[in-house]
Amino acid sequence: MPKFFAPDCDLREAHITLRGKHAEHLRVLRVREGEELIVSDGRGTEARCAVEAADKAGCLLRVLELRPMTGEPTVSAVLYAALPKGDKTEVIVQKAVELGAEGIVFFQSSRCVARPEEKALRGKLERLQKIAEGAAMQSGRGRIPWVRWIPRFPEMLGEASRAGLAAFLWEEETSLSLRALMKSRQPFTSAALITGPEGGFSAEEAEAAKAAGIPAVTLGTRILRCETAPLCALTAVMYETGNLDG
Amino acid sequence: MPKFFAPDCDLREAHITLRGKHAEHLRVLRVREGEELIVSDGRGTEARCAVEAADKAGCLLRVLELRPMTGEPTVSAVLYAALPKGDKTEVIVQKAVELGAEGIVFFQSSRCVARPEEKALRGKLERLQKIAEGAAMQSGRGRIPWVRWIPRFPEMLGEASRAGLAAFLWEEETSLSLRALMKSRQPFTSAALITGPEGGFSAEEAEAAKAAGIPAVTLGTRILRCETAPLCALTAVMYETGNLDG
Repeated sequence: MPKFFAPDCDLREAHITLRGKHAEHLRVLRVREGEELIVSDGRGTEARCAVEAADKAGCLLRVLELRPMTGEPTVSAVLYAALPKGDKTEVIVQKAVELGAEGIVFFQSSRCVARPEEKALRGKLERLQKIAEGAAMQSGRGRIPWVRWIPRFPEMLGEASRAGLAAFLWEEETSLSLRALMKSRQPFTSAALITGPEGGFSAEEAEAAKAAGIPAVTLGTRILRCETAPLCALTAVMYETGNLDG
Repeated sequence: MPKFFAPDCDLREAHITLRGKHAEHLRVLRVREGEELIVSDGRGTEARCAVEAADKAGCLLRVLELRPMTGEPTVSAVLYAALPKGDKTEVIVQKAVELGAEGIVFFQSSRCVARPEEKALRGKLERLQKIAEGAAMQSGRGRIPWVRWIPRFPEMLGEASRAGLAAFLWEEETSLSLRALMKSRQPFTSAALITGPEGGFSAEEAEAAKAAGIPAVTLGTRILRCETAPLCALTAVMYETGNLDG
């Protein structure tokens, strides 16, 4: 069933009208009168609706049922990813949203190749936020995850360190696994996963994380690409907390 | 440390010479005399080597140490993925190799959009095998995973059903999770994970899998894209079997 986020709608009304980009999207999906779809307010409630009328101007929906949102994991997991090159940011955002991330923070680290100017960065973040919205709709999330930028490494560590589980994914760590760290931190309801750029983190950065109370962990003996590691770590957190169960 | 697969080399010799594409690759990496690298025979043994001489014609290596290969998981996991559109095959192969898959099988299912002709398919499989080789080197695998094609759905089911853990990932399954299935099958040393195309599997295909002894499982309430589900499932298997530990 197609799902739409319409934060401006009052779902307690008997009828809802979708206009603009939503109406456009419904036309692309060729939704017809009588079909059902889900409208979410993006804040915890969703409505199952029937299409009463659809034309170029908009789509009139009758609210059939209000219910708490589905598709949200019980753990609030934020991904902190060092800014990679090119379109890897898009892959990371799209997949992290599907896998249940609450938000994605990009930050600068010493070996980041990408050094965008502020204006280009603003445009990039806007595009990434749209990708997050699209992925949230497609995967049936209850909320739209946010995408942010933190320029300073220490600030990123400070924020991440406040999570119930904070982990610094580092390919040079060989003994402590993310799994062992999770077992030692249970139960946790929030997670911060920090992953590096193409060239990895420096020893100084791992030291700074440790000083901020964030242990370095390994995901095993294979070296994962900078866009694969965050998705692997996020899956591990969702698996361990029962959020890949039905 | 860079890693090369050289199945033609006898690692028990005191010296090894790398030529052709390997020598070319070493030039790209700007490897210099005195540096160390790993040469794997791709069958279970690898050698730590020192570069003695490198020029256009080749690279002479002194074998410092022979050891069993690293980077191979203890579980033999094969991914059976319904053929997706476009370059998603490349994403799936690259990431599956990083995450530890022993091999990747593509197959045709009823809702596959892609219907390649045999010649195009042969070319595609050759490209995918090269991607697997590149990803194996980059991620430090001990073997090069294989990429195969099985045209007939029943044949694919028959092969997959022989694994210690065989799972049919289906978005319409809501009760049995991959996690619960894994717990009930432990210990297993081989796994077959079957994932669908963009439009998902049909109910008939799920029935056929069940008849072949392969239960349908869920990865949770979020709907994963056809290239995300295999990577999520593979990560879950590696996590559960301790293969994401250091």
